[in-house]
Amino acid sequence: MSQPSKTPLLDQISSPADLRRFPPKDLRQIADELRTDLVDAVSTTGGHLGAGLGVVELTVALHYVFDTPEDRLIWDVGHQAYPHKILTGRRAAMRTVRQENGLSGFAKRTESEYDPFGAGHSSTSISAGLGMAVARDLDRGTRNVVAVIGDGAMSAGMAYEAMNNAGALDARLVVILNDNDMSIAPPTGAMSAYLARLVSGKAYRSLRDRAKTVSKLLPEFMREGARKTEEFTRGFFTGGTMFEELGFYYVGPIDGHDLDHLLPVLKNVRDAKQGPILVHVVTKKGKGYAPAENSADKYHGVSTFDVITGAQAKAKNTAPSYTSVFAKSLVREAESDDKIVAINAAMPNGTGLDLFGEAFPKRTFDVGIAEQHAVTFAAGLAAEGYKPFVAIYSTFLQRAYDQIVHDVAIQHLPVRFAIDRAGFVGADGATHAGSFDTSFLVPLPGMVVMAPSDEAELRHMVATAVAYDEGPISFRYPRGNGVGVELPDRGTVLDIGKGRIVKQGTKVAILSFGTRLADSLAAAEELDTFGLSTTVADARFAKPLDADLVSRLAREHEVLLLVEEGASGGFAHHVLGHLAANGLLDEGLKVRPVLMPDRFAEHAAPDVMIAKAGLDKAGIVEAAMKALGASARQALKA
Amino acid sequence: MSQPSKTPLLDQISSPADLRRFPPKDLRQIADELRTDLVDAVSTTGGHLGAGLGVVELTVALHYVFDTPEDRLIWDVGHQAYPHKILTGRRAAMRTVRQENGLSGFAKRTESEYDPFGAGHSSTSISAGLGMAVARDLDRGTRNVVAVIGDGAMSAGMAYEAMNNAGALDARLVVILNDNDMSIAPPTGAMSAYLARLVSGKAYRSLRDRAKTVSKLLPEFMREGARKTEEFTRGFFTGGTMFEELGFYYVGPIDGHDLDHLLPVLKNVRDAKQGPILVHVVTKKGKGYAPAENSADKYHGVSTFDVITGAQAKAKNTAPSYTSVFAKSLVREAESDDKIVAINAAMPNGTGLDLFGEAFPKRTFDVGIAEQHAVTFAAGLAAEGYKPFVAIYSTFLQRAYDQIVHDVAIQHLPVRFAIDRAGFVGADGATHAGSFDTSFLVPLPGMVVMAPSDEAELRHMVATAVAYDEGPISFRYPRGNGVGVELPDRGTVLDIGKGRIVKQGTKVAILSFGTRLADSLAAAEELDTFGLSTTVADARFAKPLDADLVSRLAREHEVLLLVEEGASGGFAHHVLGHLAANGLLDEGLKVRPVLMPDRFAEHAAPDVMIAKAGLDKAGIVEAAMKALGASARQALKA
Repeated sequence: MSQPSKTPLLDQISSPADLRRFPPKDLRQIADELRTDLVDAVSTTGGHLGAGLGVVELTVALHYVFDTPEDRLIWDVGHQAYPHKILTGRRAAMRTVRQENGLSGFAKRTESEYDPFGAGHSSTSISAGLGMAVARDLDRGTRNVVAVIGDGAMSAGMAYEAMNNAGALDARLVVILNDNDMSIAPPTGAMSAYLARLVSGKAYRSLRDRAKTVSKLLPEFMREGARKTEEFTRGFFTGGTMFEELGFYYVGPIDGHDLDHLLPVLKNVRDAKQGPILVHVVTKKGKGYAPAENSADKYHGVSTFDVITGAQAKAKNTAPSYTSVFAKSLVREAESDDKIVAINAAMPNGTGLDLFGEAFPKRTFDVGIAEQHAVTFAAGLAAEGYKPFVAIYSTFLQRAYDQIVHDVAIQHLPVRFAIDRAGFVGADGATHAGSFDTSFLVPLPGMVVMAPSDEAELRHMVATAVAYDEGPISFRYPRGNGVGVELPDRGTVLDIGKGRIVKQGTKVAILSFGTRLADSLAAAEELDTFGLSTTVADARFAKPLDADLVSRLAREHEVLLLVEEGASGGFAHHVLGHLAANGLLDEGLKVRPVLMPDRFAEHAAPDVMIAKAGLDKAGIVEAAMKALGASARQALKA
Repeated sequence: MSQPSKTPLLDQISSPADLRRFPPKDLRQIADELRTDLVDAVSTTGGHLGAGLGVVELTVALHYVFDTPEDRLIWDVGHQAYPHKILTGRRAAMRTVRQENGLSGFAKRTESEYDPFGAGHSSTSISAGLGMAVARDLDRGTRNVVAVIGDGAMSAGMAYEAMNNAGALDARLVVILNDNDMSIAPPTGAMSAYLARLVSGKAYRSLRDRAKTVSKLLPEFMREGARKTEEFTRGFFTGGTMFEELGFYYVGPIDGHDLDHLLPVLKNVRDAKQGPILVHVVTKKGKGYAPAENSADKYHGVSTFDVITGAQAKAKNTAPSYTSVFAKSLVREAESDDKIVAINAAMPNGTGLDLFGEAFPKRTFDVGIAEQHAVTFAAGLAAEGYKPFVAIYSTFLQRAYDQIVHDVAIQHLPVRFAIDRAGFVGADGATHAGSFDTSFLVPLPGMVVMAPSDEAELRHMVATAVAYDEGPISFRYPRGNGVGVELPDRGTVLDIGKGRIVKQGTKVAILSFGTRLADSLAAAEELDTFGLSTTVADARFAKPLDADLVSRLAREHEVLLLVEEGASGGFAHHVLGHLAANGLLDEGLKVRPVLMPDRFAEHAAPDVMIAKAGLDKAGIVEAAMKALGASARQALKA
């Protein structure tokens, strides 16, 4: 006899239309089953759990009240979109989330008609939703547009820009502020404190205003009885002046785990048919799963785990991660240099700066999800003689490009950029790949651009960045662990713009920028066995280029491979520009860039992604063989 | 007998220290003289006038009350910094502003110790000021940090990010909100409406709160008498809740032209010695010079003009500007395609979209200084089947890089980017040069990147962008006028990724991307006369590249010049990458990139900047001759 299903109601739901056929009284059970299913699924795949657990009831309520996919439901970031995926026909596929050819860990337009707008970075949903709302109005349509945004995401200027514009346009748009008081890191910023005051009911708001909002927004609900109205008035409408000044109607705070509160409020908001409305929903990250609730990071991102105990599978650690080497190196340097300060944007753990913060709490600044401000704030510190290290993932640094150009590079201020997650990142996929940093930094006059080839080199580059005070300097390093080389206690200051020959050969030269050096060396050894004597050099610097080294490699070899885990326009193309400008291609050189392909990489294991890009040993060997053509075949025969 | 000076007091001031030696009663006259001098100076040079006129009294008051340069005074943007420059030892030099080797039109660190932080783009001053304030606190210093920011700049998310962080850090920082209700374009956004409500006194703020702020902030002032306190309480403290919720003390609004109000408030703010304070100062752009006050744009940026009449010198117009050709072309297309919508970020005039707005007011969106939001808002419109044209200057598009990558490129949404002011821009200098757009767009998978070679081509590219609905597409065009070619009534849709040969030769090939084509053709004609038969091709597309065209040019010529008015990493380097990847360099090709030099260009006339970069006819000829070396000398002898 087969086991009865643990999820009998959820089993009947393959789309939100199925959900909407249940009576409201069943929704509590459906939410519970959804939570069970979510924990089961993520326990087998790993992924983002805490955010999804926090929005189970909200997800059920939104799909129940709104007519998705005709009504547009936009999840900011998408960490929290797992329950949404389960309810929108992707339940079985959830067992493949973040795996090669499986579901994305984020909302994604190409994955489902229920995902009208994808998001990997936070704080974009109000802008996208406003665009959709305006499109609806131009079409004289009636659909609803709902944008969900987290409280952490509200620290980003982009969210404010969107609200500022939405308020002015007075477009009909529902923003759900999912306030779990914790995005990835503990909350930072005045807005966060403001939201807390709203929740605690301390913010001032006159009774008259409350009554006005209630009568405008919730006419049906008011008719349900004076007692309940009063309760809502007292309990829920405690503030929101700031949002109202920006032209939004503010409703809340509402208990985001209580369907009896969520459903009537969402229905009334849906039927209000007026300008922008902000619904402030309070949820608990990790809700309903004790190991998540009790964990410091609420199981934000997890590996596979045991459902009963919550114990996560441990990755086998052979060498320290680049992130931790960076962090420890910076702490070590800061012990003897009190001008060193560290800045991150809502990523103290991810960047390793939590370590720095423990050692130097007063010299550590988490500015919230606010990369633009982070960089210019650092420029202000540099202008006063400090040595700011801005630790940001490659992909997030894109948010601060103009600030890098204007406030740092044009003013030649010595801001140090520690660029983590450079190159392929694996399961997070295209939105989080660190593809473009070298391409967008190298064109900037006066910018020093480094990449370590291993963790010891990273330590040297931290020391180099501390010592270099003439202008901006950056170093990029990947997600994951180093190669296991011995780490010096302190880094050595490198000569700016000087690379190094790691292995001398005669026919083929491989010039590598960054951590593809190990595979370049392995490829060289294989090429040697074919009789193709191969030189390997570690560029260390994409800018300034080591002109002597590049020149020697070009003149003394038949083939020159330029290897980097980055997009076009970066190191390889910069070397090509140098070769061309200096006539080093005039007599013929079989020069080949070996870099990321010109497509957004779907999520997969990092080594799979690297292999697909031709950036592993086999790919590098193949590039050399292809470049040599007939002469390689000859060598192989001999 | 010599004329008496029109500015007897100002003549005695060569630094703020001199200013501070005058008694307060003289400041009114000094302000008047400063205004006279400012109008005189700008009438002979052209430049930004309206903003400076609006802050004459504020500038005098700030330098009088604060101990500059020890106290840090940061002017956001710097359009408004002209009076500041006059008071800080640069009075005589003001006659060289924005001219080659002359003063910058913006604040600039290398120009004066009184410019602690430069700014070309708006909304950065609070971030930089906060960095400086934190540095001061780490140093246990006592100096004041004052950041001036305009009301228009408050629509940018970055300003919000900085306030959010400042409120949380509770750092001692003075922000002067210079509210002239008009940045460059008329104000947009809910924040702007909020400020207007504050000024009109309609915003709610309890008397108790008012009294609290007064007693906390203005103890000295209060002692001056109850009558005055009451007046200030009633007249000045009408709101500011939003700023207070963000952790700022709000003071204002204050009449920014009344020194009797400015001086005591600034003194008290200076002596308050506590967390972040926002002083809301209301000024009038163009104040005190009738022709500016009466002009629609308040003489934001002017050419030289007659002081008495205000009549501005007219530039000789031989051909329409690229901006107007873009705008008219888009209006023409939109007449027969009601899916076309247009978005700009506080630049309706600069981008020409004011024309579009007149024709299609409901399909035009000015989102304020909010480039990040602008792009994602457009992506939302594109997701719903609209054809959004985002018209932004090249340099401002840097603000939205991450949104271009994530919300547009990764999702392959057909947002059209009309990139104005690409290349050198002349008097605005390095901060406004459009150097990097091709470099940061070409690496993005699926992005179509175009540049017209003349105004007719621009019209074709507008038509092409309308027709192309498969993904994102961009076209870049320079400041200034076209070359005078005949304009077709409607543009023709171009083949995506196809360039064109403009002139066929045999020895030298010039492949030009953008408006350097005319000089490339002129250079080719000169090379022909030397017996160096030269081909010229118009690439039209940097991405996708015309592989056939590139291949032909490479195979059939001894020299290939790649010409673009852009930085490294863009078109030329992308072509080099293509040539290398396809083995087209293996047999030797004298290929040379001809592009912007690797330094930030100081302001000068655009043709001077182009010549200095070697991007004019002479520079292109020289590049070809140098590449040819001995063989060119031989040709010349023959």
